[in-house]
Amino acid sequence: MLETTVTLSRLKAFIQEALTKVGLPEQDASTVAGLMAEADLQGSDGHGVTRLPQYVRRIKAGGFNVRPNIRVVHDHLSTAVLNGDNGMGHLVMKRAAEMAIEKARTTGIAWVNSQFSNHAGPASLYASMPLAHDMIGLYFAVGNANHLPPWGGLDMLLSTNPIAAAIPAGDEKPIVLDMATTVAAYGKVKTKALRGETMPEGWMIDRAGKPLTDPKRADEGMLLPLGGMEAGYKGYGLAMVIGLLAGTLGGAAMGRDVIDFNHDDDSVTNTGQAIAAINVAAFGDVAVFKKSVDTLVRDIRNSERMPGVERIRVPGERSFETRVKRTQNGIPVAPALMRGLDQVADDLGIARLA
Amino acid sequence: MLETTVTLSRLKAFIQEALTKVGLPEQDASTVAGLMAEADLQGSDGHGVTRLPQYVRRIKAGGFNVRPNIRVVHDHLSTAVLNGDNGMGHLVMKRAAEMAIEKARTTGIAWVNSQFSNHAGPASLYASMPLAHDMIGLYFAVGNANHLPPWGGLDMLLSTNPIAAAIPAGDEKPIVLDMATTVAAYGKVKTKALRGETMPEGWMIDRAGKPLTDPKRADEGMLLPLGGMEAGYKGYGLAMVIGLLAGTLGGAAMGRDVIDFNHDDDSVTNTGQAIAAINVAAFGDVAVFKKSVDTLVRDIRNSERMPGVERIRVPGERSFETRVKRTQNGIPVAPALMRGLDQVADDLGIARLA
Repeated sequence: MLETTVTLSRLKAFIQEALTKVGLPEQDASTVAGLMAEADLQGSDGHGVTRLPQYVRRIKAGGFNVRPNIRVVHDHLSTAVLNGDNGMGHLVMKRAAEMAIEKARTTGIAWVNSQFSNHAGPASLYASMPLAHDMIGLYFAVGNANHLPPWGGLDMLLSTNPIAAAIPAGDEKPIVLDMATTVAAYGKVKTKALRGETMPEGWMIDRAGKPLTDPKRADEGMLLPLGGMEAGYKGYGLAMVIGLLAGTLGGAAMGRDVIDFNHDDDSVTNTGQAIAAINVAAFGDVAVFKKSVDTLVRDIRNSERMPGVERIRVPGERSFETRVKRTQNGIPVAPALMRGLDQVADDLGIARLA
Repeated sequence: MLETTVTLSRLKAFIQEALTKVGLPEQDASTVAGLMAEADLQGSDGHGVTRLPQYVRRIKAGGFNVRPNIRVVHDHLSTAVLNGDNGMGHLVMKRAAEMAIEKARTTGIAWVNSQFSNHAGPASLYASMPLAHDMIGLYFAVGNANHLPPWGGLDMLLSTNPIAAAIPAGDEKPIVLDMATTVAAYGKVKTKALRGETMPEGWMIDRAGKPLTDPKRADEGMLLPLGGMEAGYKGYGLAMVIGLLAGTLGGAAMGRDVIDFNHDDDSVTNTGQAIAAINVAAFGDVAVFKKSVDTLVRDIRNSERMPGVERIRVPGERSFETRVKRTQNGIPVAPALMRGLDQVADDLGIARLA
């Protein structure tokens, strides 16, 4: 069965129709659909339309609030906490990013936490929002399922808690880092499962400490923290600190309180994220900064390569390439995913995606 | 030859006398000596008194300014850039931390960059300064020698750029993460060399990509980024982003501009660091936050262990244990280091350390 491709606008329209059908207001459905389709366009395949069946299931089960009253519960000159009222995370974190950008205009930096938010898609989407304002974006999130034990442990008390950073450049593309603090993100595991592929050794281990490579058996194993068997205590430390910053600080779930949204469609997750906007202009001349970033990117790109390496990349470069390619050729949808989306369409009585 | 141990106060007094002898004002010498001795007390052996011979050499060569005019060059409500005037990094970053704490009192968060700073010792020292004010500390630095190539490359354009985070707890000890974005910090390599030990495989590779385990041959090799051969692109991305935040943002050196202070005693390094203070009270009730941190620490500590694992630790726990042990038993000084310190003492005409 061949992989189907769809355009960005068709993908967005499909998601929007589905979300509207299950009760989201038109404007909110459009916002969420736009961000989800953007995720697919840039190659964040674990965070885009692949999540739609689950989102629809959660909404139907009452697990998401489709008419949330998203509101500020703590507000200072450079910080805020936003209560998402269990609405979709995309709505909460878009608003959090906008607040951070607005505050950072005058104070130089701002940091906004969410509580009672939900899964919001790829971290890079939100970290990148300050870029258009010549600001650096930082984003931290508590993952929506605990697949990571502490270093030396078996109890999965931590998630893949990602960190993202977006840094404006001049003539070069911005630098956009988006990484889980595990060797592999759990979304990647799910994508492998959907595609019927096996995982490389080093992504997961089973409870006996042996490599686990069948993504369909993911429930039996644990992710390895960044650093792997050798320096995984660092990835564990990062995951814990990010969880404290994105979750505990804002009064959101962390540790034992995290709801596994892969196995629970109706509990309020109290997901927490944090976004910071850093106003480059507060630190000096913006043009000088951007020129320095350009120089660094070029120095790295043109530096001596190891034998067999075709190109040295900077973080975010591959996503930009994917974006260009998929804008031209369409966004691929794997057969297993398409079957799931067809099911969603049929259930909701809307036109299939393709 | 047996390892000598010294008390914290003796160590501090020795460093202070040496620094005063080479021209630092009494108060500055006391501040730097206090922070350096603290580094040794907590087990940051690569960042304490082991650096004294090099510092003294640099000062004598005119590479450090012993009477710096440390001044604010950009100032906003929640941000600042501090020009260290090529003074010792400890002085610059202590002042940066104090500024960040003061600003965060009213705005909720503050971020201060340094330029024309220098090596300041372990990141955790500065990240921990906000703790006493019920604030979270974050610290980022550009390392003082490029030992890390971009992923897939051979040109060492990046350093071990560390990140540190300190998070206040209630009855538990604060969580203090301090990690280089390479598998191992270069200071650890130097410590191995001083002790005549070999490095484990995975810390460094030579230019042919083969493991390098002799720390005396460190100059021939490159550090591996966090993630190692498998996911090192993540450590590379982190190192780059941290360098941009700690260096480029504040107008300090990054990439090709970084001076290798292991091989250059007199050039101005224009070292950059960044510190953030996050005021927990701006995000909710401080007592509730601390209780949540305590619960997380205990849940992790009491969770199920892998066979053979004696204790599950949280970041910073080992440093606290080392601090207690060395307060009781003294701070060990390896024979090779002691010989170097004796040489410093003899050259300066001051009493030897022990």
